[in-house]
Amino acid sequence: MDAQRVECLFDRLFPLCRSIAGEGFRKSLEILHEVLPLEVQRVPSGTQVFDWTVPPEWIIRDARLTGEDGCQVASFRETNLAVVSYSIPVDRWLTLEELRPHLHSLPALPDATPYVTSYYRENWGFCLPHRVLESLPEQRYHAWVDSELIDGELNYGEAVLPGQSSREILLSSYLCHPSLANNELSGPLVLAMLYQKLRRWPRRRYTYRFLLNPETIGSLAFLSRRGEHLRQRLEAGLVLTCLGGPSPWLSFKKPRREGTVLEQVIDNLRSTGALGVAVREFTPLSGSDERQFCSPGFDLPVGQIARTVYGEYPGYHNSRDDKQFMGIAPLLRSAEEIELVLRGLECGGCFRNLSPHGEPQLGRRGLYPSINSEETRRNASSDDVLDGRQFLDAVLILLSYSDGRHSAAWIASRLGQPVTRLTSVIDRLEQEGLLVLEAPP
Amino acid sequence: MDAQRVECLFDRLFPLCRSIAGEGFRKSLEILHEVLPLEVQRVPSGTQVFDWTVPPEWIIRDARLTGEDGCQVASFRETNLAVVSYSIPVDRWLTLEELRPHLHSLPALPDATPYVTSYYRENWGFCLPHRVLESLPEQRYHAWVDSELIDGELNYGEAVLPGQSSREILLSSYLCHPSLANNELSGPLVLAMLYQKLRRWPRRRYTYRFLLNPETIGSLAFLSRRGEHLRQRLEAGLVLTCLGGPSPWLSFKKPRREGTVLEQVIDNLRSTGALGVAVREFTPLSGSDERQFCSPGFDLPVGQIARTVYGEYPGYHNSRDDKQFMGIAPLLRSAEEIELVLRGLECGGCFRNLSPHGEPQLGRRGLYPSINSEETRRNASSDDVLDGRQFLDAVLILLSYSDGRHSAAWIASRLGQPVTRLTSVIDRLEQEGLLVLEAPP
Amino acid sequence: MDAQRVECLFDRLFPLCRSIAGEGFRKSLEILHEVLPLEVQRVPSGTQVFDWTVPPEWIIRDARLTGEDGCQVASFRETNLAVVSYSIPVDRWLTLEELRPHLHSLPALPDATPYVTSYYRENWGFCLPHRVLESLPEQRYHAWVDSELIDGELNYGEAVLPGQSSREILLSSYLCHPSLANNELSGPLVLAMLYQKLRRWPRRRYTYRFLLNPETIGSLAFLSRRGEHLRQRLEAGLVLTCLGGPSPWLSFKKPRREGTVLEQVIDNLRSTGALGVAVREFTPLSGSDERQFCSPGFDLPVGQIARTVYGEYPGYHNSRDDKQFMGIAPLLRSAEEIELVLRGLECGGCFRNLSPHGEPQLGRRGLYPSINSEETRRNASSDDVLDGRQFLDAVLILLSYSDGRHSAAWIASRLGQPVTRLTSVIDRLEQEGLLVLEAPP
Repeated sequence: MDAQRVECLFDRLFPLCRSIAGEGFRKSLEILHEVLPLEVQRVPSGTQVFDWTVPPEWIIRDARLTGEDGCQVASFRETNLAVVSYSIPVDRWLTLEELRPHLHSLPALPDATPYVTSYYRENWGFCLPHRVLESLPEQRYHAWVDSELIDGELNYGEAVLPGQSSREILLSSYLCHPSLANNELSGPLVLAMLYQKLRRWPRRRYTYRFLLNPETIGSLAFLSRRGEHLRQRLEAGLVLTCLGGPSPWLSFKKPRREGTVLEQVIDNLRSTGALGVAVREFTPLSGSDERQFCSPGFDLPVGQIARTVYGEYPGYHNSRDDKQFMGIAPLLRSAEEIELVLRGLECGGCFRNLSPHGEPQLGRRGLYPSINSEETRRNASSDDVLDGRQFLDAVLILLSYSDGRHSAAWIASRLGQPVTRLTSVIDRLEQEGLLVLEAPP
Repeated sequence: MDAQRVECLFDRLFPLCRSIAGEGFRKSLEILHEVLPLEVQRVPSGTQVFDWTVPPEWIIRDARLTGEDGCQVASFRETNLAVVSYSIPVDRWLTLEELRPHLHSLPALPDATPYVTSYYRENWGFCLPHRVLESLPEQRYHAWVDSELIDGELNYGEAVLPGQSSREILLSSYLCHPSLANNELSGPLVLAMLYQKLRRWPRRRYTYRFLLNPETIGSLAFLSRRGEHLRQRLEAGLVLTCLGGPSPWLSFKKPRREGTVLEQVIDNLRSTGALGVAVREFTPLSGSDERQFCSPGFDLPVGQIARTVYGEYPGYHNSRDDKQFMGIAPLLRSAEEIELVLRGLECGGCFRNLSPHGEPQLGRRGLYPSINSEETRRNASSDDVLDGRQFLDAVLILLSYSDGRHSAAWIASRLGQPVTRLTSVIDRLEQEGLLVLEAPP
Repeated sequence: MDAQRVECLFDRLFPLCRSIAGEGFRKSLEILHEVLPLEVQRVPSGTQVFDWTVPPEWIIRDARLTGEDGCQVASFRETNLAVVSYSIPVDRWLTLEELRPHLHSLPALPDATPYVTSYYRENWGFCLPHRVLESLPEQRYHAWVDSELIDGELNYGEAVLPGQSSREILLSSYLCHPSLANNELSGPLVLAMLYQKLRRWPRRRYTYRFLLNPETIGSLAFLSRRGEHLRQRLEAGLVLTCLGGPSPWLSFKKPRREGTVLEQVIDNLRSTGALGVAVREFTPLSGSDERQFCSPGFDLPVGQIARTVYGEYPGYHNSRDDKQFMGIAPLLRSAEEIELVLRGLECGGCFRNLSPHGEPQLGRRGLYPSINSEETRRNASSDDVLDGRQFLDAVLILLSYSDGRHSAAWIASRLGQPVTRLTSVIDRLEQEGLLVLEAPP
């Protein structure tokens, strides 16, 4: 997936009017299926998921706000942000005063159209630039929304790339904001790029689960089906969001649970200079689906990975969050950097030394120089990444600390190496029957 | 209880000659009963309590030390500090040399009379200003102590203000030093004020146990009856001591056990600026009854709260610890500040989110704006203490971390708010069936 | 054992050609037996110990490298470092080019002869100064090694000084390098001095096990017999190495396991100024037998104690590591300082207060002044090390924290005293039936 392919997908996806349930979501999955073959899951409207009820589907055909003077104030045809998501049908004449509670704008960004929703209480409304709102003359207005709320289904898409272990890594993003770029399409597009990359890996130690859902209610529906499975199997997870924009670095939000392997891998890559990444503490006050994955009943080791973070750029949740702001190049860079994190996770877990009573005899396995002199130790057998002594050091420290309690990421940090540089050492020790992967404690 | 009422009680209590067992203690409880209706508990002399034996009652009628020249050196009538507490009867003429081992003074404070006791080994003695001691001429002296040690009982007083939970908070102080102010009467008087305040609270989440005992042996006798009960039920406790004097701040001595809810509440109030309070580490080397409550066999979450701390002011354990030094106003201030700590404890404990799988749907409970826009989130439903967004933040963070392991005090600190400001949020979440109080882990 | 006795032993031991199995090792044990009566243990060649196989014995009678021109290049008669340890027999004429892979030198130290081994792969070689190697003319050379590898046995020596408790402290060192001083004989000689010192202690709380083995394979053989026993009984252990040389301080390498009593004792002695000692983190990358004792299958609380550390001085593993570099005086000093560490361990363990409900009544045991005044508390009963108040403080804090989880070393640090100063207090509390030693948690 080169930049051109990504941009082409973006241009087809951007105009669709997505919401949390309905045709917009399904059509988007269908387009993405070309590069990310997710299986569509169905959850009927009205289904109880934990404390929530799956809402009806929203059908929106058209919407328009027109003045008595014939002037068109807002139009769904021009931008699907113009109508509040999940607006019920309306066809009424109102005075400006009656209309005001149904109008939304951003005084601080007078030229931008905000993104507003009302999923769980019946309402309707229009969004428009504050400059337009302020210039509206006192007159009567015709509010017309041609929409429908029908019993249908909520959908999410799921795909699995199997690995050697049944332990899983979850990669998820969301689709539900209509014409937004960084805070909508950047996530699914990077997710697709990662799928294409991982599909080609010659070996996957873990099984990778890809998930694309409407935010919040979609991840809850997914958890109602897969939550227990994940509680038993999940090694790590990342929610992908806001992966474009001008920020030079990735930004990682830690899981609620402390001391996860995921956190240790990110810390290892950051502290050894292998990856530029800002680290945020967990908070339930803002964010994406990691808030659901990390809720206390699940407490999964799922973090969130972003680049130009929601709430930290002026275009957040309004019409200025477009392709120009997001950019295509940052998406490719995000995919590459997240792939590095996944490579770190692949070898950063908790292993167990199967020959733990004393140091195993490395010499007969060709892992230690047969002549023991300072010189030969410095030139011990190595791979193309680590020189001889570094290779031997990695062998010794992995064997010493692989007791099922210390992750290889932690061990690598103790050695001052990015954990990704230990990949070949770990592979070799696995082949020799000296190490085996375990679930973290 | 205003300042006048407190001072009047003080003036009636100060002259009584209290000791660890006997009439002085019982009369003091009787006077305090007007504002602090404690039930008197009886432990017969000779009872074994753990490693100790309850001593006999001490009856002291009079005591006098007179020179051959007719000069009166020390007199119980003038101050009950003049005779060593638990002095046995004596009626002897002695030379100055023979007398010296029975005389106690403070060279560094030549005008002060020290406070000295000999509870557990039969002895007698007089306390006098060092200036007087130094001027004694070589002659014979008549030492006369009209006292008695009789089989009787040791007493302590106990009262309970019930709350919604059977989990308890212990408030204790001691009575046993005769005419001392800061290091004797300040504690019981503040205890009485707190009783009056808590009695009027519209709601008490916890059950409050009030205790007044002779120091050390009294708390041991109490523990021999209630120790196991407290080990199962005690959420927190405070030993009240030295609550008057010039210090501008309260001073909190931590329990021996680390990480208690009590410590977290104090830390929260201190770090958010809600309460000025110095914090001392636990030590068994000095202090009051918290040394018994925190002994390793009980290890209760009981701290000590003081203002002008024993050992840190020159009047400690001598006649300069009087009403003028102590002051009445500091007692009222201490009572108010400790009430704030108790309000913090009331909502600072460990709660459990009863809807822990994903974020509960707040909207249908009126806890989340039904229209989701930046503007409405900022103005979410609130109370009179927290503005809209703060209220919502408090809801979200309480739900996220209330897993029975994190106290609300810890959660409030993470939010940067005094825990007392979360009271209404916690009440609301309890009403909604979303939170329930648990014993700390 | 004074300096003269130590030097005399050194001079007899230095010339012997020790290796990991054979006569050199046994003769050395025999000489040391005069001061360190170790029982010789036998492990037949070919025995499997964990992942290793015990190698054959190496018999070396002579070895010589001579040029066609008659010039003698290297000779076992001159230094037993001249032949690679475990060289197989050889009697061949070779060109200089053919010979080169069998020659070992140190370019950075052109006058020193390196120490080289090839235990586990059959090989032969000569070690010589780089200056000699560089001056060798192109000609044919006669390589002659009169050696044999025979089925025999591996040996190690073990002795026990029993103490009151069956819990053990392990003191170990190694013998296997031929004519090296700091990195060979310093350890066994200090071990012998410690044996002589501890033998004379009037009381040993712990049982002391002394061990002398060929490095690595010897400690593995020992562990294969005693590993499980030590896992149940070992309180602490020290591997003695490199205890001479110019360094002014001891250097302690922590065990792999964190928070051991050993680490707390060292930290206590260091932080209170009682012992100058550098502290190194655990690493499996270099070191001595602690690498085996701390392997994850055993994870014993064994540290390593050194003075002038291997790898940190130029003479390491070559002929410059001689008596002059090592010195005799530093060995005596090391023995004294390690004895202090052992005295710290003797009283630094985890005790349990047997009267944990409240403070025990100290007065009736003569541990608290019967008259309670500021003055008498300052002069409470004491020993010759702690003044009165310090003695009482030590009593109180030991009773408060001795719950089986806090070591006396930790408690002493809280008090700001070297733990060795608490010896008499702990002894007294044991006599009073108030404290009893426990295994650490």
